[in-house]
Amino acid sequence: MPVQLSAGSDVAMRPHHDGSPLHVSDLAPALGETVRVRLRVPVGAVAGDGSPLGALAWVGTRSNPNREPRFSEASVIAADAGGQWWEAEVEVENPVHGYRWLLAGADGRQHWLNQLGLQATETRDRDDFRLVAHEPAPAWAASSVMYQVFPDRFARSAAADGRPAPDWAYPAEWGDPQRLDPPYRSGQFYGGDLDGVREKLDHLASLGVDLLYLTPVFPARSNHRYDASTFDHVDDLLGGDEALVRLVEAAHARGIRVIGDLTSNHSGDAHEWFRAAQADPAASERDFYFFRDEADGGGYESWLGVPSLPKFDWSSAELRRRFIEGPDSVVAKYLQAPFGLDGWRIDVANMTGRLGAADLNAEVRQTIRRTMLDVNPDTILLGESTNDAASDFQGDAWHGAMTYMPFTRPLWSWLLEPGSPAGGGIGFALGAVPTVTGREFHAAHLRFAAEFPWRTRLATMNALDTHDTPRFATHARPGTVPAALGLAVALPGIPVVWAGDEFGLTGEDGEASRTPMPWGSETSPEVAPVLETYRSLLRLRREHPVLSTGGIRWLAVGDDALAFVREAADATVLVFAARSAAALEFDAGALPGADAATVLVGDGRLAASEGRLRLDGDAPGFTAWLLPGVAAPAW
Amino acid sequence: MPVQLSAGSDVAMRPHHDGSPLHVSDLAPALGETVRVRLRVPVGAVAGDGSPLGALAWVGTRSNPNREPRFSEASVIAADAGGQWWEAEVEVENPVHGYRWLLAGADGRQHWLNQLGLQATETRDRDDFRLVAHEPAPAWAASSVMYQVFPDRFARSAAADGRPAPDWAYPAEWGDPQRLDPPYRSGQFYGGDLDGVREKLDHLASLGVDLLYLTPVFPARSNHRYDASTFDHVDDLLGGDEALVRLVEAAHARGIRVIGDLTSNHSGDAHEWFRAAQADPAASERDFYFFRDEADGGGYESWLGVPSLPKFDWSSAELRRRFIEGPDSVVAKYLQAPFGLDGWRIDVANMTGRLGAADLNAEVRQTIRRTMLDVNPDTILLGESTNDAASDFQGDAWHGAMTYMPFTRPLWSWLLEPGSPAGGGIGFALGAVPTVTGREFHAAHLRFAAEFPWRTRLATMNALDTHDTPRFATHARPGTVPAALGLAVALPGIPVVWAGDEFGLTGEDGEASRTPMPWGSETSPEVAPVLETYRSLLRLRREHPVLSTGGIRWLAVGDDALAFVREAADATVLVFAARSAAALEFDAGALPGADAATVLVGDGRLAASEGRLRLDGDAPGFTAWLLPGVAAPAW
Repeated sequence: MPVQLSAGSDVAMRPHHDGSPLHVSDLAPALGETVRVRLRVPVGAVAGDGSPLGALAWVGTRSNPNREPRFSEASVIAADAGGQWWEAEVEVENPVHGYRWLLAGADGRQHWLNQLGLQATETRDRDDFRLVAHEPAPAWAASSVMYQVFPDRFARSAAADGRPAPDWAYPAEWGDPQRLDPPYRSGQFYGGDLDGVREKLDHLASLGVDLLYLTPVFPARSNHRYDASTFDHVDDLLGGDEALVRLVEAAHARGIRVIGDLTSNHSGDAHEWFRAAQADPAASERDFYFFRDEADGGGYESWLGVPSLPKFDWSSAELRRRFIEGPDSVVAKYLQAPFGLDGWRIDVANMTGRLGAADLNAEVRQTIRRTMLDVNPDTILLGESTNDAASDFQGDAWHGAMTYMPFTRPLWSWLLEPGSPAGGGIGFALGAVPTVTGREFHAAHLRFAAEFPWRTRLATMNALDTHDTPRFATHARPGTVPAALGLAVALPGIPVVWAGDEFGLTGEDGEASRTPMPWGSETSPEVAPVLETYRSLLRLRREHPVLSTGGIRWLAVGDDALAFVREAADATVLVFAARSAAALEFDAGALPGADAATVLVGDGRLAASEGRLRLDGDAPGFTAWLLPGVAAPAW
Repeated sequence: MPVQLSAGSDVAMRPHHDGSPLHVSDLAPALGETVRVRLRVPVGAVAGDGSPLGALAWVGTRSNPNREPRFSEASVIAADAGGQWWEAEVEVENPVHGYRWLLAGADGRQHWLNQLGLQATETRDRDDFRLVAHEPAPAWAASSVMYQVFPDRFARSAAADGRPAPDWAYPAEWGDPQRLDPPYRSGQFYGGDLDGVREKLDHLASLGVDLLYLTPVFPARSNHRYDASTFDHVDDLLGGDEALVRLVEAAHARGIRVIGDLTSNHSGDAHEWFRAAQADPAASERDFYFFRDEADGGGYESWLGVPSLPKFDWSSAELRRRFIEGPDSVVAKYLQAPFGLDGWRIDVANMTGRLGAADLNAEVRQTIRRTMLDVNPDTILLGESTNDAASDFQGDAWHGAMTYMPFTRPLWSWLLEPGSPAGGGIGFALGAVPTVTGREFHAAHLRFAAEFPWRTRLATMNALDTHDTPRFATHARPGTVPAALGLAVALPGIPVVWAGDEFGLTGEDGEASRTPMPWGSETSPEVAPVLETYRSLLRLRREHPVLSTGGIRWLAVGDDALAFVREAADATVLVFAARSAAALEFDAGALPGADAATVLVGDGRLAASEGRLRLDGDAPGFTAWLLPGVAAPAW
């Protein structure tokens, strides 16, 4: 098969830097601290256009403290047959301190290296690498393997049988077909509960999962519960507060953390606060929402105009006090005993606090995080921002994003059948999934990841799909699920399994994908190999910490295949992901340890010949190899 | 000579939109207003990769109100032999409301159009077009032709002879050579004054200038006066308050507006506020600055560590009251009678209010603008931010930027002699000016302009050089001054003449360029043709308002030449700028009025042949043609 990449455009042979411990001396610096940063320049390095880089006249960093450039010259601290290590000192002068590398050639050319890669002309501040002096996420955030559960559809304990269905519900038996038409869409009620989740923790453990994300568990008037009627207690239909306590305890006993889901943009219209506000214009809760004067047509602001989801007005100090600020707030309550949740995923984080000329988003997110740090600092805070999330995710509050831009949508475009429908659920314009090449996948991934600090990238969710989207497998090109999941595992970010994907479930939209779990089918001939794929790929992540925190260096990018390494001082993992039979080649100098590679998973081949390394495979797939770590000078 | 652009990559034949009145129904909308926006799609339109665009299945806008995407479908409102006009409605839901166009092809491809141009895959929010509901700049801002004066070096009135030199000064006669070594660097004192400026207003008028920008006029201890010792009155060495009043009155009588220069980042260490603060730790002025405890080494924060320029601490309410807030503030005082300045240029706007974890920049700039709106709304506010200025210039305060990224630095890189030194004065890394092609000029211009709202682009300074930089002509490729000035005049933005450039002065750095003006040489054989170049090109801007407010559409981009139109309903100006003998070609369909073109300035040629238009010239130069306006449907 043809090799898709010409020698001249080897990304592999470019100078490299990223935010990982190979390249940055302190990933959680204090404000004012001097951090050392390192650049690797391979022997035979090439510029962005593929031409030889040539001799370097000056190498260093360009920072931008208080928005005024400052340069710091680097020096060579180590050199061997493979190349040079340059090191510069950067003082962290602002809480988010941007920097880029400048490599000035003896030939007069200037090469800038930022999060987008190597550039021939001056670059934007937005794309700088960043050092962040805000409180970091817990260390376990980046190493997590996440599993997402939608409680009504996951598992039903025996206790659920005794509970009467609520007035809004259309009860269904577990094996009943889903009904997607209103009112069944949000009303069909399968009755899964938290004890049901607890009873299935062995399943999560068998997948290698160590972080369970529960969609909302508060009382509401829908099966999705994003329309909370109170935050005061866990829904009795799910087993109530005690069931959540039991679940978290049992999960913790297995080394699985648990996070909840809060709606900071809105409540349900049946929420006790909203009812109080509606009933009495003088109520203290009146200011929690945006009621319009009768002269302006009356009513109130709501999420995308849906009246059952009235929008919060965060200028209310009382709302902050009850919901997000201080040890008595909702945010604090469930992170403490007896509940002990390990963090929150915040729904519609992007719209929170924003309306017209008001933008209180930064205040709200920072208040939430401050409260968490006060009552339980070992917690994670994720924000939903499914489109371009860059501006809000600079490290001042959200640790990571539930976003579809850097990973999920490019992945769908690369791996779904051309002309696939059902892209609307994941935010594609007009509901259509555009088809892209591997090069375009790579460019889109970088474009939307480049504005994140490194630490935000590590805590951002790499999801193939979620409870809000069609399932990836529904229209995936045949045989590409391993490539998709492998990339979720191997790219920077938290790999996410939306419950049921490991059973090979499909679903045409975000409602259809809320399938009751097909328990009992684990050993069926259809399900068993899918489960094994999930177990083997997620296990990779658990067994090789470099996949969580290592640097990322792209080696080759073709239309149908991608190759990169995650690398650290103690291990390197080489990744080859293909959507069809494909081959890639690159300069062997880019991967000195290749002759010691041992395969971890997959059927791809790695071969060396005449100074080149070649990766190929006969079919779509995901292959990973373990190599020695990078010989880096000690800090 | 070879044509540098292949037919397939005609930028000319791409669908087009910009922020101009041809394309946007209201350039100063209110919050909540619905604005109509228009897209032109020429017959035979091409996609970003040059392939035929083909039939369109859906066209419309994608906005991002409260950070959640919203689509608005467009419809064809007019069509003729040249192409189609599409129109969509966009509600301005936030004060800065981003939008982009989506063109979905019947072939399944999606084309996104944003401020960077046409894109094949999803784009960042940062690069959206923007509608801005903040108060706009005065209408005259965009049509201004600016002239920058450094008072000590511009002209000396007879009254200056009677004034004793101050203690810090090293007096010089007008014809004395400059001394660039300290202490002469900032101490050499030529004694130019404001009556001197007033006496030369005819010169400004003869150039077509209608906006005079004076660098600081407050008392200080240097010739540049950026180290103010008070803001209470105009320096007596310049003629005092009365001289400023006389100058502004005389300028206004000639239709020339005048703006001043304020240092919001720092004062001089001889400033009365700083002296009071130093003398008494209990003084109210103590909080105006950042004094360090003795335990931390004592001293105070200053601009880039220069002790004579102590940095302001904007958390002080008293500092705000005295300096920027309300009718008694410094900001207000000089905009009112008897002074009547027409606005401010703010020095080091980028660093203002920023230090460590503190960032009060938005508060300071918005307070300055609010004060200006209160006392004299018909004023302009420009902020110095010489590098990437995007984040602060979204329309909430600064009308435009004194920045070198979208224009000046790319211009230098395109038009200076390769290997030119002296780039440090304009912020190039390592003081070296990298050489770029016309394509790279175009890409850099777009990269740094794309994050500005259209209105910010129109009020941003297009300077060849300033009092802080070497003079452009010093190392320009022979014959390229007309191309450089022509682009300053013809690209969106305010063209700026740094006093002396029109005399052909040179200067190797930002000190050497502060040359005393060579009055009396206007008719010399060296100076006269340069003056004529300046007069004829600046006149273009005055005579053709389309160069101030018209849309911009690129027609062809080559290594050595650039072509674009500025266009409006009543006129189109076609521009061809070249750094050498060069030719460009593009599809004649992109410029239907070309057969009626009449040359306004320059020696370039325009010819049509076989459906193509060809622009060429035998030498470096700037050529402009007047064409009929664009036949657009009425609003």
